[in-house]
Amino acid sequence: MTEATTIQPTRSGDARICRGCWDQMHVPIPIRGALALPFRAFGITRSKMNPNICTICERSFRYVKKQSHVAASATILFADIRGFTHLSEQIERVRLSQIVSLFQDRCAQAIWAHDGIVNKTMGDGLMAIFNFPIVRKGHAEAAILAALDIQRHCAKALGSLQLDDLKGQPLGVGVGIHSGDVEIGEFSSFRSDFTAIGGTVNLASRLESQAQAGEILISSETAAQAGASVAGAAQRLLTLKGLDQPVEARVIVKRD
Amino acid sequence: MTEATTIQPTRSGDARICRGCWDQMHVPIPIRGALALPFRAFGITRSKMNPNICTICERSFRYVKKQSHVAASATILFADIRGFTHLSEQIERVRLSQIVSLFQDRCAQAIWAHDGIVNKTMGDGLMAIFNFPIVRKGHAEAAILAALDIQRHCAKALGSLQLDDLKGQPLGVGVGIHSGDVEIGEFSSFRSDFTAIGGTVNLASRLESQAQAGEILISSETAAQAGASVAGAAQRLLTLKGLDQPVEARVIVKRD
Repeated sequence: MTEATTIQPTRSGDARICRGCWDQMHVPIPIRGALALPFRAFGITRSKMNPNICTICERSFRYVKKQSHVAASATILFADIRGFTHLSEQIERVRLSQIVSLFQDRCAQAIWAHDGIVNKTMGDGLMAIFNFPIVRKGHAEAAILAALDIQRHCAKALGSLQLDDLKGQPLGVGVGIHSGDVEIGEFSSFRSDFTAIGGTVNLASRLESQAQAGEILISSETAAQAGASVAGAAQRLLTLKGLDQPVEARVIVKRD
Repeated sequence: MTEATTIQPTRSGDARICRGCWDQMHVPIPIRGALALPFRAFGITRSKMNPNICTICERSFRYVKKQSHVAASATILFADIRGFTHLSEQIERVRLSQIVSLFQDRCAQAIWAHDGIVNKTMGDGLMAIFNFPIVRKGHAEAAILAALDIQRHCAKALGSLQLDDLKGQPLGVGVGIHSGDVEIGEFSSFRSDFTAIGGTVNLASRLESQAQAGEILISSETAAQAGASVAGAAQRLLTLKGLDQPVEARVIVKRD
């Protein structure tokens, strides 16, 4: 089994084979080096969702999983720029686009560093999935670490912009994280639109909508899974749109 | 110029050449029939955003427009399923996925029928752009017609589902529409993520968030452009998150 060992993906840095195809099917798909060239001729390249997975993971879900969607345990992260609607009324669109670019790029680097995928980008916001297709033990903690990196890197990048026209209004990012069962797959007949849906996804999104600039709001499920790494985080009781019961969340504020 | 006439795109139905490339560059890219085959070999196929445009429009924005983003006048439409967060707590994820599929497909058909593109899908929601890359005179009215089709077709499709576990809670769609200047292009260095950003996009999204099931909320700018077709629509003053001033909207309720 020496050969199998040598083609195993690295657990950090640049993987030579697609980590998603390996984790989901135990099939080695080369994505870097000379072996990747013939695959590229067939349109199989590194995914834009995470450079350590390939486009098979992203576009051929039915082929990989033999069904259009499957249940999975995952951690979902939403992030967006606080006050972007207000901002979009105040400054030129060209500068707005610079801010969106900075935000998207810094978030992606942080998410990839902890084995997540950037599943959706939506202007000033994005959604990431941890534990699919790259299987990651401790995915709740991985998402929190990614969120801390997002806060740190975005604060630095956004702070470096000369935004005097904001009149002192701080520019920051809010993050929401929740862990649980999701339905992962393709939910549209007209496009290969690989994503996750379910109550877990919606709660993560609702938490994010309540996060202030610089805050990471995590659910008690995520906190329980992450264990010691969130010890000492403040608690906050939230009333969220669409949910009958108040939700208890933990608040993590970015470290400098 | 007989030849040029024969390769002109049809203004409805299935275009033989990409309507986006034609409208933006006056370059005929075959997307149907025998002439499309050699293009397919190079990965140029019909776009999933609208089957009358090609993947050049979607993935090669910089190549088409010679810059990463441009200003454009457009109408932006957001739609989502009302009460989806509540719903996602009540019913099984597999049934939830059926609802999402129905919604996405019915919306896409309605948007395409009026020359819009489905730019983003996000679980129970989506964002469409009218007037780019397919140039459409009367794009405000086109978006309203698409919204009416969305309401009609979704009501029929969602009504046919046996959702007794909803306990009488109606399942419906909310739509928000706003017209104005947007910045269109790619705003990320790590993926070809063709989209629109700016205050116009955010206002459309905020309007949608306030629409009740079955309602279409349109801004006064969209109403002014659409003219007679919205005469008689009720007015509503809305306080929207992130905006200092209340916004006057028109309310269109679906026709049976």
